[in-house]
Formats: sequence, structure tokens, C-alpha cells
Amino acid sequence: MNRSDVLAAQERIGAHVRKTPLLSSPALDALAGGRRVLLKAECLQHTGSFKARGGWSALSALAPEVRARGVIAFSSGNHAQGVARAAAAFGVSAVIVMPSDAPAVKIANTRALGAEVVLYDRATDDRDAIGAHMAEARGLTLVKPFDDPMVIAGQGTIGLELLDELPEGWQGEVLVPCGGGGMSAGIALALEGSGARVRPVEPAGFDDTARSLAGGKIERNARLSGSICDAIITPAPGVLTFPILYRLCGPGLIVSDDQALEAMVLAFRHLRVVLEPGGAVALAAALFLPGLAGDVVAIGSGGNVDEALFAAAQAKFPG
Amino acid sequence: MNRSDVLAAQERIGAHVRKTPLLSSPALDALAGGRRVLLKAECLQHTGSFKARGGWSALSALAPEVRARGVIAFSSGNHAQGVARAAAAFGVSAVIVMPSDAPAVKIANTRALGAEVVLYDRATDDRDAIGAHMAEARGLTLVKPFDDPMVIAGQGTIGLELLDELPEGWQGEVLVPCGGGGMSAGIALALEGSGARVRPVEPAGFDDTARSLAGGKIERNARLSGSICDAIITPAPGVLTFPILYRLCGPGLIVSDDQALEAMVLAFRHLRVVLEPGGAVALAAALFLPGLAGDVVAIGSGGNVDEALFAAAQAKFPG
Repeated sequence: MNRSDVLAAQERIGAHVRKTPLLSSPALDALAGGRRVLLKAECLQHTGSFKARGGWSALSALAPEVRARGVIAFSSGNHAQGVARAAAAFGVSAVIVMPSDAPAVKIANTRALGAEVVLYDRATDDRDAIGAHMAEARGLTLVKPFDDPMVIAGQGTIGLELLDELPEGWQGEVLVPCGGGGMSAGIALALEGSGARVRPVEPAGFDDTARSLAGGKIERNARLSGSICDAIITPAPGVLTFPILYRLCGPGLIVSDDQALEAMVLAFRHLRVVLEPGGAVALAAALFLPGLAGDVVAIGSGGNVDEALFAAAQAKFPG
Repeated sequence: MNRSDVLAAQERIGAHVRKTPLLSSPALDALAGGRRVLLKAECLQHTGSFKARGGWSALSALAPEVRARGVIAFSSGNHAQGVARAAAAFGVSAVIVMPSDAPAVKIANTRALGAEVVLYDRATDDRDAIGAHMAEARGLTLVKPFDDPMVIAGQGTIGLELLDELPEGWQGEVLVPCGGGGMSAGIALALEGSGARVRPVEPAGFDDTARSLAGGKIERNARLSGSICDAIITPAPGVLTFPILYRLCGPGLIVSDDQALEAMVLAFRHLRVVLEPGGAVALAAALFLPGLAGDVVAIGSGGNVDEALFAAAQAKFPG
């Protein structure tokens, strides 16, 4: 893949996704020790996360007769809603396979976007078998959450917008919340040759991408639950995303859960946007990690915010 | 005043304020009974409120030799920060006269923008005398919060952006949080002849503008404290703003404090932006009031949000 894939995705999705604002505040810059911190507010994207880009990119790239049979995705959150929104707009069916213990609000939001939600029991059901059976029976096309060229290219359109928004020739670091690496890889492709460099950011304990980049081969997370940053917890970088990350990105960055929570509170307080913890890790890195040089861009994403967790974080980090 | 004043303000301020996004969500539309609700997110404006527009508009219109002597404003909140930001950018001094019992965060934010904050005691000091004395001694120019043509024109640039963002020929109602009427009047001027119509929105008990519009003459509020919507509580519509409102706007709308709080929570939950109560009254009207026809635009504004109040509102209106 290369930059032309991202440009092609931009052609397909540009009229159907929001060009999100690049926000900043003197108060945040001061907290970051004087560097300028720019937040690309993907929480204001349709469905609340950048996944609306990848979902539309994937569906718009399908042959019409294939798309007409419908799509299927496995997701308990943001990818589900991104795919559901695109499917509804194209007038095709979307089956979203979700664990039965997913938060009720995520199930409701996905259904509200017109998707058919199929619940499975994590303990007893074989998710992949359920999906494969439905896909085969109905001719559905699987839309993967990150390891798909069209999804990577769709997320990469964020990078094209940054090139428009940043000063000509801007050379700095673009910090990206990283799960499977679709957004990091896409933005890195978009920015290739610009002088700006992507740094993937992960929560402590789930740093598969940082370790993979350091070791030069795909490493896995030891566990897949127990993080408040659930939106960006994946087993390992993808077989498509990792080579792109390894070729184009700087070393991975790691933040603590508390740093992610404080960044979420500071985004509310100073930028007046709502991030979810996993979508706040890049802002946390921009604000709290040493060793970053000069001004930085952080990508922020929203999705479904646990309001009790948010209130507790506000109380923990008073203004 | 007329539309050309707003166009002139746009020329002066366009490069220095954010073009704020127009946000929507299927979930909010459903809550509004199926009408489309579009939120112009002025909470994402520099300083968190639309006041950054009026402040820049006013300072940029001063003769350079007048501006160089500095400006003065009376404000405990958003206007203070809008004026302070513009003054700092022009490299001139700003004196902001604030009550000594103003929230510490507002005083700190105003100082962080480089302004000289002069505190007075509401019980014992004569605010106007203090301001007049300083203005005369130092040759400062007073920037009024709403009853100033340049301020009205600056806030009106929101209306010009709406004309770009809405479909050609859109005919609907634009609901605007209304204190002294500067933003309502400015947007009404910008939209004159477009087919769109401004409706000022106020909190119950502080409906001076609604009563003034109904009676055809300026009416005053009985009291000036005791509302959670403190950002939009003023004694009466202005002598400049009222004739514009009376000529161009539809009848005023009134929402309860609880409706404003619930709108604030719903903006967090579904649009992922942070409004203050006074900046949420237009969204509250869009969501909860009967009798509005078709799609509506609501202007939302931020400023300084009381986080304890916010948390209490989230608990009161669970998702």
C-alpha cells in the first residue's frame, strides 16, 4: 500500500465523513511544558470515532453486486457503528456480531444505526463459527476492523486533512492511539515524505505494537482484558498494518491508565470535547511523556464513554 | 446596522477565529421527535465561546493609535476571555474588571490570556466608577459585551458560516442563546433575506428578551442572579440589539433550568462536546419545545463549566 490508496479513499469518503477540527488551548500547551499540542478531534466524527472513515471506505470499495448482499463485522463498539452507518447509507444490510455482555448502550447505538445485531456468549459460543456460518449462508462480506487495505486507507484520510491544516512543511510527531494499527498505518501512509512522523501510542500492559516495533516482528499482548482503554485492545498488530508501521513510524509510546484518564478530563476542561480513555492515550502522551521534541499533533477519538468512569476521573483530577 | 457590517467583520476576524463545525446525531434527532437538530458548536471556538469573535471584531476595528492605549471590559467570564485573547494578539493591554467572588478558574483563565484583572467587591465597590477611573487615567477603550456594533457584527459571523454550511435556500429556525442579544442580533443580520429566522432562547425567570419582543419595547429582568445559566443573564436587551431583534427575529423561546441541564448532558453523550448551561438553552429548545417546524439549528457555547454541576446533571439524566 502507499499514499495513492489513501488519496483514492479520500475520493470515495470525503463527502460522507466530517473534516474534524484541529483544536488547541493555551492552558494545555502550558501543561505540556510549553510545546504546542494540537488535538485532531475525531470524537466529533460521525458515530463518535474515526471508524466511520474506515467503514465507509471499505463499503464504498466493494463491487455493487457484492455490497448488495450485505456485510458482517465483529465488534463491540466503534467499528460496529462505523460499518453500520455506511451500510445504512448504501441501503445494504449489516450484521454485527457482538458479545452478549457488551454494554447495552453500544448494542442500542448499533441497532439505532440500522444494523442487525447478533449476540454470542463469550464463554460458550464460537464467535468466528457463528460469523462464518452467517456470512456463507447470506453471502455477506466480512469487514475487518483494521487489517484490511480499504479500512487502513480510510483511516489514513485523517493524515490528508492534517496536511491541509498544518503549516506547509510542518515537521513534527503525530501521536496516534493504536490498537491493531489501522489508523496509525493509514496516517503514516498519508504523511509519507512530508517530514511528519507517526508515533503509535498504547496503554501500559497492552503494548504489543511498541514491542513489535522495537523487536522488528509481531509480538502479542499477554492478555486482552482489564484495561479501561478497551477500544484499542487487540491481540497483536496486523499482518498488513505491521509492515507499514515498521517502515514508517517512530518508536511506540506507552501511557498509564491514569494518564489516559487525566487527558480525558483535560480535553473536557480545556478543549470542550469528550474522548474515551482509549481515544485519549495520544493526548496523554503529548501532555505527559518526556522526550518529545517541539509541537505535536495528537489524534483523539470518542465512541462510547462510560459516564460513571468519566465522573470518577473528574473527581480524581480536579481543576 | 445591516448585513454589510457582518461581512466587514468577517473580513477582519476570519483568519483569527475557528470556523466551528455543525454537528448532529441520529440519537438526538430521535429525541427531538424526528426533526433534524444541527448544533453549531461554538464551544469549540477559541476561549470556548463565541465571545472570541466579538472581542476580535471590536479590537480589530479600533484605530491603531487608540487600540495601542489598551482596552477595558467588565466581565466575569466569556467576554473577558474573548477581549483578553484579542488584546494579547494585538500586543495591547487589556484590563478586565471582575467581581472578587468570580470563580477562581475564570480569573485564572483570564490572567492566563495576559489580561490585567482588577477585582472589585460587589457589596462595597462601584464597578463603573472603578472602570471609568482606570479608563480615563490610561486612555483605555471600553469594549461592551453586546451593545456595540462591532461586537454584534463579530458574533454575526456565525450566521455567515451557517449560510455556507446549510443547504442552499434552507428555510428554518436558528435558535440562539440570548443574554443581551448581541449574538442573536448579529446572526439575524447575517441571515436577513435568506429565509432562515433567528429565535432567541432564554432560561425561565430571565426572559427579558422574550417579553420585550412580545411587547415591542425593552423590558427588564426582575433579578440578575439565581440562574445556572449565568453566562446569559443580563438586565435587559440592549438599545442597539433590541431594534434589530424586533425587526428580524421570531418570538423568544424559554426553557427550564432542568431542560438546559439535560441538553448539556445530551450534547456530551451524543455529540461529544461540552456546553455550559447558558450555552445549552438553544439545544434544549430544539430538543424539548413543541411548536417548532422542521429542522432546526441550535447554537451551542461553552466557556467555563462547573464540573460538579456537570457531574450532578449526568447523574440526574442517566443514559
